[in-house]
Amino acid sequence: MLQQMFRNLKERAPLIHNITNYVTVNDVANLLLASGSSPIMADDSMEVEEITSLCSGLHLNIGTLNRRTVESMFLAGKRANELGHPVLLDPVGAGASKFRTETALRLRKEIKLAAIRGNISEIKAMAFGSGTTRGVDADVADAVTEENVEEAVRFVKGLARTSGTVIAMTGAIDLVAEEDRVFLIRNGDPMMPRITGSGCMLSALTTAYLAANPEERGWAVAAATVAMGLAGERAAEKTKAAKAGTGTFRSVLIDEIYNLDETTLVKDAKIEIR
Amino acid sequence: MLQQMFRNLKERAPLIHNITNYVTVNDVANLLLASGSSPIMADDSMEVEEITSLCSGLHLNIGTLNRRTVESMFLAGKRANELGHPVLLDPVGAGASKFRTETALRLRKEIKLAAIRGNISEIKAMAFGSGTTRGVDADVADAVTEENVEEAVRFVKGLARTSGTVIAMTGAIDLVAEEDRVFLIRNGDPMMPRITGSGCMLSALTTAYLAANPEERGWAVAAATVAMGLAGERAAEKTKAAKAGTGTFRSVLIDEIYNLDETTLVKDAKIEIR
Amino acid sequence: MLQQMFRNLKERAPLIHNITNYVTVNDVANLLLASGSSPIMADDSMEVEEITSLCSGLHLNIGTLNRRTVESMFLAGKRANELGHPVLLDPVGAGASKFRTETALRLRKEIKLAAIRGNISEIKAMAFGSGTTRGVDADVADAVTEENVEEAVRFVKGLARTSGTVIAMTGAIDLVAEEDRVFLIRNGDPMMPRITGSGCMLSALTTAYLAANPEERGWAVAAATVAMGLAGERAAEKTKAAKAGTGTFRSVLIDEIYNLDETTLVKDAKIEIR
Repeated sequence: MLQQMFRNLKERAPLIHNITNYVTVNDVANLLLASGSSPIMADDSMEVEEITSLCSGLHLNIGTLNRRTVESMFLAGKRANELGHPVLLDPVGAGASKFRTETALRLRKEIKLAAIRGNISEIKAMAFGSGTTRGVDADVADAVTEENVEEAVRFVKGLARTSGTVIAMTGAIDLVAEEDRVFLIRNGDPMMPRITGSGCMLSALTTAYLAANPEERGWAVAAATVAMGLAGERAAEKTKAAKAGTGTFRSVLIDEIYNLDETTLVKDAKIEIR
Repeated sequence: MLQQMFRNLKERAPLIHNITNYVTVNDVANLLLASGSSPIMADDSMEVEEITSLCSGLHLNIGTLNRRTVESMFLAGKRANELGHPVLLDPVGAGASKFRTETALRLRKEIKLAAIRGNISEIKAMAFGSGTTRGVDADVADAVTEENVEEAVRFVKGLARTSGTVIAMTGAIDLVAEEDRVFLIRNGDPMMPRITGSGCMLSALTTAYLAANPEERGWAVAAATVAMGLAGERAAEKTKAAKAGTGTFRSVLIDEIYNLDETTLVKDAKIEIR
Repeated sequence: MLQQMFRNLKERAPLIHNITNYVTVNDVANLLLASGSSPIMADDSMEVEEITSLCSGLHLNIGTLNRRTVESMFLAGKRANELGHPVLLDPVGAGASKFRTETALRLRKEIKLAAIRGNISEIKAMAFGSGTTRGVDADVADAVTEENVEEAVRFVKGLARTSGTVIAMTGAIDLVAEEDRVFLIRNGDPMMPRITGSGCMLSALTTAYLAANPEERGWAVAAATVAMGLAGERAAEKTKAAKAGTGTFRSVLIDEIYNLDETTLVKDAKIEIR
C-alpha cells in the first residue's frame, strides 16, 4: 500500500492550495515541489474559491492566522467540500489562544475535513477545546511514549470516530487514526522539531498524498508520515556526518524528500497497525 | 554589452523596492544582495511612495496579492513613474483567478512598465486576458520549444510592440522581446522550476539590471536572464555532484549569483538575437 | 559573565513572542530554535496579548510593518510591560519613511523597552527623529570605525541614559550601551550584511538572552552580540573554504549558533568595556 500511495503521488502530481502561515510557507512550497506535487499559495477572499477549484487538495494552516485569512479559509474550505477535494487542517497553536482554538473548532465544525494533523497538545485542544473542565480522556499524557501508547491509541481512535476525520497526532511516535484502526509510525529523528516547519511541511505533504489517494485516506496519511520521517532520519544522519546543524538540516530534509524512492519508503518504514 | 550591463550593476549597486509575495520574499532579498544590489521590502500604503523614492527600481509581484497590497502597488508604481524609475511586473498566476488577471491588466494599463516577466501562461494571460474568445495569436503553444520558437518570437515581439514594454517570457528557452528584436536565451537547467522562487528571483534581478542600465532595457533584461540561467546551470551541476536535491539547490543558486563574474557571464552566455 | 548568560539561556530555554517582518521570519524562528530557545509568531490583535502572556520575552521588528500589525505591537508591548517581560525593538528602516520613524518613536514612548537594536542609521533615527534639523550629536558618522569610536561611545551612552534602555548599535564594531558603560564587540564578518536577516536574527537572539537573564541586561545583550558575531566568523570561514556564497552562508550561520558552546563563546569573544 505504501508503494501504491507513493506511485499515485508521483503519477497524479496533484496541485495543492495552501492557506498557511508566513513563517514556513517557503519550506512548504519547496517540500511539495520536492515531492513531485505542486503548490499554490493564495489567501485573499477575492480569489480563494477560484484557486481552490484549480487544485485537487486544500491545506489550511492557522500558524499566523488573522481575520482576513480566516475568512478565506472558510470560503476555500466550503468550495473544496463542494468539489469533493480533501481538506486538511493543521491547527498550529490550538490551545495557545482563544482565537486559534475557536478558529480550529469552527473550521472542524463547518468544513468537512479529510484529516487533521497536529502535535499532541494541538490535537487535545481540538478534542477538548481550551476549556478548563476536561473529560476523562484529557488524561492522555503530553507526549506519546512506549509506556502510554495504548492510551494514546484509544484517544486518537475515539477522536477519529467522533469526528469522522483521519487524525494524525505526530511526535516521537506518530499516530494516524481512522475509525477502526491506528497506524503507529516510529520513523523520524529528534532533530526535526529543532527546525521550524517540520509539522507544516508534513501537513502539506499529507494533503498531497490525500489528493493523490482519495480512496485510501488512512494509508495516504500514513505514507506521508513515513516519507517525512524517513527524510528526517536521512537528513539528520547527513547533518551529523558533516558536523553541521539545523540550518543545513533544513535544506537536506527537502533534498531527502526529493530523492526518496518507493523501494526505500517500503523497506525502511517502521509502521505498525493496531 | 553583457559585460557592460554586469559592470553597471556592480558599480551602481541599485536599491530595489519590492512589493512581492511572502512565499519567496526571503530568496528575493538574498538574491538581490548576492548580485551586488540591495532590497527593501515595504507594502503598506502609509509608506510605499516614500520608500520607492529612495530606490532606483520597483519590482511588483502579485504572487500572494491582497487588496491592501494591490493598492500599494498602484501608489508605488505611480510614484516610480513620476521619478522615471523602471517598474517591472511579475504577473504570478495571471490567468489562474480573475483577481490576478484583472490586477495584472490594470497595473499594465495604469503604470508605465519597463518590463513584464512571466512564464508562458502568465504572459498569454497578459496578452489576451482570461477571456474565452481568444484571437489567433492565442494559438501560441504552452511551452516554447525549438519547433515552435518562430511563432513564440512573433508573439512576444508583437506584445512588446503593442505594450511598449520589454517582455521576458521565460521557460526552457527564454525570450526577451523589445519592439524590434528578440533575445533567445538557452541557459538554465530543468532543476530551476523544481524550487519555488526561480521566477521571482529572476524578476527581482531583472529589476536591478534595469535600474543599473536604464538606457539599454532589452540588453539589461537579457543580461539578468543569462545570469540567472548560468547560476542555475552551475547550481544544478554542484547539486548533482553532491547527490543532493532541491533544498541544497536553492542555497547554491544564490551562491552562484554571488560568485558570478563578468568573464563567465560573457563566455557561457547562450544568447541569440532575432 | 558571558558563560553565565549562555548557561541561563540553555537552561531556561525561553519562549519568545515575535511580531516581525515576513522577509526574515523563517530565519528568526530557526535561529531561536538553534540557540535553545523557542519562537512563537503571532501578529493579530485578536490574540497577541494572550500569546505574549505565554512567553517570557517580546521581540518587535518593524521590517514590513502595516497598520494591522502596528496595532498588535502596542497591545503585545503593553501586556509584556504589565507582566515584566523584556521587550526589544528592532526599528528596521527607521529614518527611511515617516511611518517607520514615527512608529518606532511611538513604540519607544509608549512601551517600556529593555533594549533597542539597530544599525547606526536606525539608531540615529531613534535618537533624532527623521527631522532635518539635527543637534550636534547627529554628527556621529555613518559607520563606527576605530577612528571615530570614542564619539560613537559617547553617543550611545547618552542615548542609553536618556532612554533608560540598553542600546545595541551594530555594524563592523558593535556597541552595546547601558547608562554607565559600553561594551565594544569586535566579532563578526563582512559577509553578515550580505544576507538579509543578520540583524533580525540578532534581535531575536538578544530578546532570548534578555528573557533568560533579566537581571543583567547589558551583559545579556553583549553575550547575544558576541554569539552572533562568532557564528558569523565561523560560518564565513566555512563558506570560503567551500568556495560557496551567501546562500550557503545563511544556512551555516544557523548551524554555528546551534553548535556554539560556552567555552568557545568565552575564549573567542572580542569584548572591551568602556
